[in-house]
Amino acid sequence: MTTLETPPAYERLVELLREKKILNSCGALLGWDEQTYMPPGGGEHRANQLALLAGLTHERATTPELGDLLEQLKEIEATADPLSVMAVNIRDARRDYERATQLPRKLVEEMTREISLAQQKWVEARRQADFSLFRKSLENIIRLKREEAKILSREGDCLYDALLDEYEPGMKAEQVQALFDPLREGVIQLLQQITDSPVEPKTEILKRSYPTSRQHEIGQAAAAQIGFDFQRGRLDTTAHPFCSDIGPGDVRLTTRYFENFFNSGFFGILHEAGHGIYEQGLNADQFGLAMGDSVSLGIHESQSLLWENFVGRSRPFWTHFFPKVQGLYPESLGDVTLDDFYTAINDVRPSYIRVEADELTYNLHIMLRFELEQKLISGELEAADVPEIWNSRFTEYLGITPENDAQGCLQDIHWSAGLLGYFPTYALGKMYSAQFFKAAQTAIPDLTDQISNGEFRELKTWLNENIHARGKLYQARDLVKVVTGNELSEKPLLEALGAKYGEIYGF
Amino acid sequence: MTTLETPPAYERLVELLREKKILNSCGALLGWDEQTYMPPGGGEHRANQLALLAGLTHERATTPELGDLLEQLKEIEATADPLSVMAVNIRDARRDYERATQLPRKLVEEMTREISLAQQKWVEARRQADFSLFRKSLENIIRLKREEAKILSREGDCLYDALLDEYEPGMKAEQVQALFDPLREGVIQLLQQITDSPVEPKTEILKRSYPTSRQHEIGQAAAAQIGFDFQRGRLDTTAHPFCSDIGPGDVRLTTRYFENFFNSGFFGILHEAGHGIYEQGLNADQFGLAMGDSVSLGIHESQSLLWENFVGRSRPFWTHFFPKVQGLYPESLGDVTLDDFYTAINDVRPSYIRVEADELTYNLHIMLRFELEQKLISGELEAADVPEIWNSRFTEYLGITPENDAQGCLQDIHWSAGLLGYFPTYALGKMYSAQFFKAAQTAIPDLTDQISNGEFRELKTWLNENIHARGKLYQARDLVKVVTGNELSEKPLLEALGAKYGEIYGF
Repeated sequence: MTTLETPPAYERLVELLREKKILNSCGALLGWDEQTYMPPGGGEHRANQLALLAGLTHERATTPELGDLLEQLKEIEATADPLSVMAVNIRDARRDYERATQLPRKLVEEMTREISLAQQKWVEARRQADFSLFRKSLENIIRLKREEAKILSREGDCLYDALLDEYEPGMKAEQVQALFDPLREGVIQLLQQITDSPVEPKTEILKRSYPTSRQHEIGQAAAAQIGFDFQRGRLDTTAHPFCSDIGPGDVRLTTRYFENFFNSGFFGILHEAGHGIYEQGLNADQFGLAMGDSVSLGIHESQSLLWENFVGRSRPFWTHFFPKVQGLYPESLGDVTLDDFYTAINDVRPSYIRVEADELTYNLHIMLRFELEQKLISGELEAADVPEIWNSRFTEYLGITPENDAQGCLQDIHWSAGLLGYFPTYALGKMYSAQFFKAAQTAIPDLTDQISNGEFRELKTWLNENIHARGKLYQARDLVKVVTGNELSEKPLLEALGAKYGEIYGF
Repeated sequence: MTTLETPPAYERLVELLREKKILNSCGALLGWDEQTYMPPGGGEHRANQLALLAGLTHERATTPELGDLLEQLKEIEATADPLSVMAVNIRDARRDYERATQLPRKLVEEMTREISLAQQKWVEARRQADFSLFRKSLENIIRLKREEAKILSREGDCLYDALLDEYEPGMKAEQVQALFDPLREGVIQLLQQITDSPVEPKTEILKRSYPTSRQHEIGQAAAAQIGFDFQRGRLDTTAHPFCSDIGPGDVRLTTRYFENFFNSGFFGILHEAGHGIYEQGLNADQFGLAMGDSVSLGIHESQSLLWENFVGRSRPFWTHFFPKVQGLYPESLGDVTLDDFYTAINDVRPSYIRVEADELTYNLHIMLRFELEQKLISGELEAADVPEIWNSRFTEYLGITPENDAQGCLQDIHWSAGLLGYFPTYALGKMYSAQFFKAAQTAIPDLTDQISNGEFRELKTWLNENIHARGKLYQARDLVKVVTGNELSEKPLLEALGAKYGEIYGF
């Protein structure tokens, strides 16, 4: 065997990983269908289908053959250029295999059962706005996640690091905290300046009548225009927006429309289209392998946020799009100026619900959750005390106090689904997106003009080349450094927010 | 172990069969999605997904454990009442196991891949009305089907029998021919009487403007009224109508609408709803087992045809429905009488497209395909020669010649889907449906009045009890005998057609 040949063990590894991914993608389609078109009566059978596919995928993720192959490929991995395709794919396969095989089956099963119960408890607790109904479930989930973290954590890491690593590989809680501290300070300062400003965006504009079929039309057109390829994707309506990657050539977005609130549908589409453009930009030849996969949840979120906020909530974007939206809704927007519309979609105002929060205060929602999660996992905080600390911290950060638990600590599904360590990736995504967008502005000097003209191709190509096509070649922070030339920092985000709100609110 | 206990081997058999069926049902959803909502770019990945699922299903269908269990259950099967649930389920599992273990996995996977590609070729070929674009795919499929038939055929059977047996278990090509011969004679005689009649149905009525959204509305309402449950199913639009059983509680119908031809959408829906009512009437507790499965394609078709033709094209049905349809389309139907409408939807006229053919000449379409398929499989006919023989035979039977391949041999999806041996079941279904409907009329003396009043519950219940709930307890011809008291015959069909057309055309 010459060094130019692909080792048979690697070829077999690729085959196994592809098969696992294809199987997983069948589940993705079933999940998408469950949210979009499945009739009510199909729920029980769908659960059986998904459970079977999950079991088969897990079987493939933990098959001893994978362990044998990785053992055989150890030397190649050690001696190859660490940034070669083969090394990256083997390294990532090893990471996944180790995570999958380290957790005892008993723990995985207990977690699955607990999550299934916790979700029901959470739904009921949220409905009744009563945390006490969910307390016991949260305690159990925290206990199990601590067990999981103990098994997975590496030397020198805190327990939380092991959970964060699942969603943001390589990132440590300490590093996140070091970014969040100055970010919080900057956000709170901006929020104060905005609160002190006499400028009052006319938000009622967005609550006029926007018949939803035309929202769909303009949203789909906008998604296509920024570069989401509808030959290789689609857009549907669901209770909660999401982007589902079915496989190469098939990426599906969903959104929800409210006739009396323009933002949800339109910005939901731009956001999910950002995720979708990332998925469509992955290397299809590397499907199922690290080099054909997204870097992390935070980097994924950076792509959605870049299109939603840095492009979609910018003045140049609306210079191009406002006349079109106005033409679609002459009754609601005929008397509205571009400036009023632009100001309204950038209104900043403390609010209770994370997914409805503005670009600025959203960060505070995330930081609050990150702090609580760390304390829950370290054992400093008991589940029973969550509502109290939530409300007091919320008041401290946002200046308003939730009236009940549904508006407070019960609003998000994540904890009931066992997703701890996930929240910080939303705010990391904000920082990544700001830093990437700044680099794109440098690389494309007339980017602002292009956006004003409704031209997005150069920006999309830049993202494709610098981020999407690289797959998991770099971990998130390294990617940021390679792409932007700088270490990850909160500064580009604070600068961008400061510039935008300074102009709008006059400070 | 007492004889009252369920043998553990049977319990395990049930478990394995259920798992296989669930896996198969994942493929059913992926197939449905491919026809309804999948973006064009998703085709290649979908082929990979379906190939993998087919391989896994085949693995489960051929696992040696199944063979061992069936071996252990041999005595129970031999000594139990042959019409007991356990005996029926074991017997059918053995039949499936034997068929499945005979086919090599490589052949199954090759077929799946070929089919997925062939379907895309067929769509394109039909769009361009150019058989040459599909020829290569058809050759590949015929080659693979011949391989399959050679492996499966039993002593004394022709190759075609082995394929027919997949869709109509127990039926032989020779038996079909023995029914088709007098049927063809009767049909051609009736066609002659109709051609000679001075009565000329006003078919232009049906070609007026019928905006499709209202076709969907009335079609969906009619499907619900005859008993299709939309809590456990749905209705979508596809190039070719079908009914897909995803699993208990999830049965999906599709149809296609033409603004300037009423029949396609409406009768397509009644037809598929008939299939759907059968699926919804199966015993969910027996899901994955013979006792919870449909008898054969012919019996399935009898259910769709019973609702489409014996109910849906009857005078009493339109006594109830015509005012509703007239109300939806006042511009097109305001000046039309019930009698004119009833006569128009029962117009007999040789035409090119099978699914749009009238109830009478439809049989000739099937016989033509049956003859061609037999020759393709026996090797007497090359794929390349299909258009020529199609057109000449078509002219001989129906007196008209297709103008192009889209109107001719490319019109149906079946061959591209590898469904050879399937077509004759349509005409068998006609005969079954006539014989069943005659029995229902005897069992429900005021059935005609009920239909005139838009009441279908008693008929649906009769079908549920006599046919659907029985699963595969009987093979098709035995079921016909048990339900109707008579051997399967072409006579009830010819009698019903003769009575209907005699009244309309005055002979």
